[in-house]
Amino acid sequence: MNSRKEQILEQLKSNSPKFVSGEALSASLGLSRAAVWKYIQQLRQEDYIIRAAPRKGYRLEQEPDRLDAARLANRGIIYYPSVQSTNLVARSLAGENAAEGTVIIAEEQTEGRGRRGRRWISPRGKGLWFSLILRPNDTSLAAAAPVTLAVAAALARVLRRETGLKVTLKWPNDLLVEGKKICGILTELKGELDRVEYLILGIGLNVNQSGADFPPGLRLRASSLALAAGRVFDRTALFLSLLEPLREACTLFFKEGFSYFRDTWIGHNSTLGQEITVAWPGGSLCGTALDLDENGELILQDQAGRVHRINYGEIV
Amino acid sequence: MNSRKEQILEQLKSNSPKFVSGEALSASLGLSRAAVWKYIQQLRQEDYIIRAAPRKGYRLEQEPDRLDAARLANRGIIYYPSVQSTNLVARSLAGENAAEGTVIIAEEQTEGRGRRGRRWISPRGKGLWFSLILRPNDTSLAAAAPVTLAVAAALARVLRRETGLKVTLKWPNDLLVEGKKICGILTELKGELDRVEYLILGIGLNVNQSGADFPPGLRLRASSLALAAGRVFDRTALFLSLLEPLREACTLFFKEGFSYFRDTWIGHNSTLGQEITVAWPGGSLCGTALDLDENGELILQDQAGRVHRINYGEIV
Repeated sequence: MNSRKEQILEQLKSNSPKFVSGEALSASLGLSRAAVWKYIQQLRQEDYIIRAAPRKGYRLEQEPDRLDAARLANRGIIYYPSVQSTNLVARSLAGENAAEGTVIIAEEQTEGRGRRGRRWISPRGKGLWFSLILRPNDTSLAAAAPVTLAVAAALARVLRRETGLKVTLKWPNDLLVEGKKICGILTELKGELDRVEYLILGIGLNVNQSGADFPPGLRLRASSLALAAGRVFDRTALFLSLLEPLREACTLFFKEGFSYFRDTWIGHNSTLGQEITVAWPGGSLCGTALDLDENGELILQDQAGRVHRINYGEIV
Repeated sequence: MNSRKEQILEQLKSNSPKFVSGEALSASLGLSRAAVWKYIQQLRQEDYIIRAAPRKGYRLEQEPDRLDAARLANRGIIYYPSVQSTNLVARSLAGENAAEGTVIIAEEQTEGRGRRGRRWISPRGKGLWFSLILRPNDTSLAAAAPVTLAVAAALARVLRRETGLKVTLKWPNDLLVEGKKICGILTELKGELDRVEYLILGIGLNVNQSGADFPPGLRLRASSLALAAGRVFDRTALFLSLLEPLREACTLFFKEGFSYFRDTWIGHNSTLGQEITVAWPGGSLCGTALDLDENGELILQDQAGRVHRINYGEIV
């Protein structure tokens, strides 16, 4: 049996786009007008956009965008309405022997994180915030390191296909549209030097944010698929369309290595040929990005003509 | 106040190398002869060697070799009489934010482990079984990988100095004497791809084992410092003499990289120039070990003359 709140929602839905008077709602449900108002406020907090007009009542203008939890559950995907971060849940599950291939997705992350402890803003109903647990037990940590570039290349390809947007790659693993970041990958792992116990790929993809969903300081550097494409995406469908290519990319990477993905990475990149500055804790280098090697390392030529091979850092 | 067992031990010690009669022990402590026998058996289980002779009584022939827990505690070292494995304790402490430099040592490991889940036999009173927690947070996982070779090189050098034995290195990080393994290093870590959260160096050094302390199947491949040198070592003193060089090596490695240790590794190695087979999960290669590169990778030339760079595996 539905709650009062759900009964009100039902009436709003069945009458939409017409108004339902507060009087009619309170009479049919046996509630006071004040109680009806309280439930309307609750629905608004759940992202239902409900217009209230004097003498007309209430009108449902927009339902919240929600992942289709039932459809995800059918695929064995672990869905949470809200988590601190999906990587945190994944680490906990991996420590309890969750199987290779386990996927955790959340409608919202309250403490989403990017590389090096930075914040990743992950509002409810706007993006795809998920983590994939892998167990490439026969891989050394060093050999596993380029997995992030392989995954970035695979994601760039599938996102171009699914959205029509020109998604590009900034070394090592940022996905950009029109020079702004739309997706980040945070890879965490645990193991011995020559045996990965588990590896977690945490992916944050900005899908349906509007400009107002980004803090002002971020608007010049971050975007969403919807902002770039001028249309809203079905997040559940988008997620399911990219999950299998992502799993395949991981399998291929641990079988064939990064060299299999190098051409795809290069084909989508916006870094090579540019004058860039790469920084890492304790150093930085300016120069021309010449090439990407078989291990995903960046070949950079500095102003003095010296060539450097850089295995981690960020373009600043 | 001492227990009855300790009182018996005191009497045996003060009379050693003479016998103390069971009658005298039972009379002075107000115990039955059977109770005296029970305590003697308990002391034997703690590795006291006590001879029992008819009509003479008991004689303490040898006290057990024990690490000096008080001296270790003075240096801030965490001492356990017995653990499953020191790496397991270290992982748990590291997860609870134990500081960089924390050291855990145990008199015995009941489930000591080597690389790739193998057993490492760690009997009570015979070796140095310890783990060191490091937090090189500004290091990528790939850059941290050669730490084991750097530590192996530093240990080989200090063990040669302290024991006079010709300790050699088998790629990547086994310490040998006369071709038999005396020390292994198991490195475990957790972190993001470009930021190590913690790294644990687990070291097992065979010190005072006799031949009988090794299972028959291991005697051809494993040895101890005592077996090779023909004398017993003071394990506490040996441990303290190698701990500071070990800490220094870690600091230098994370500051300067492996290239700083390459000459030392090569100077102590018994691998280069040999015909070897290197195996890893999923493959193996036979050939001549030509060189060790700046990252600790082995340069191997196969029978067809092709040169390979191998970043992990084991010589079989």
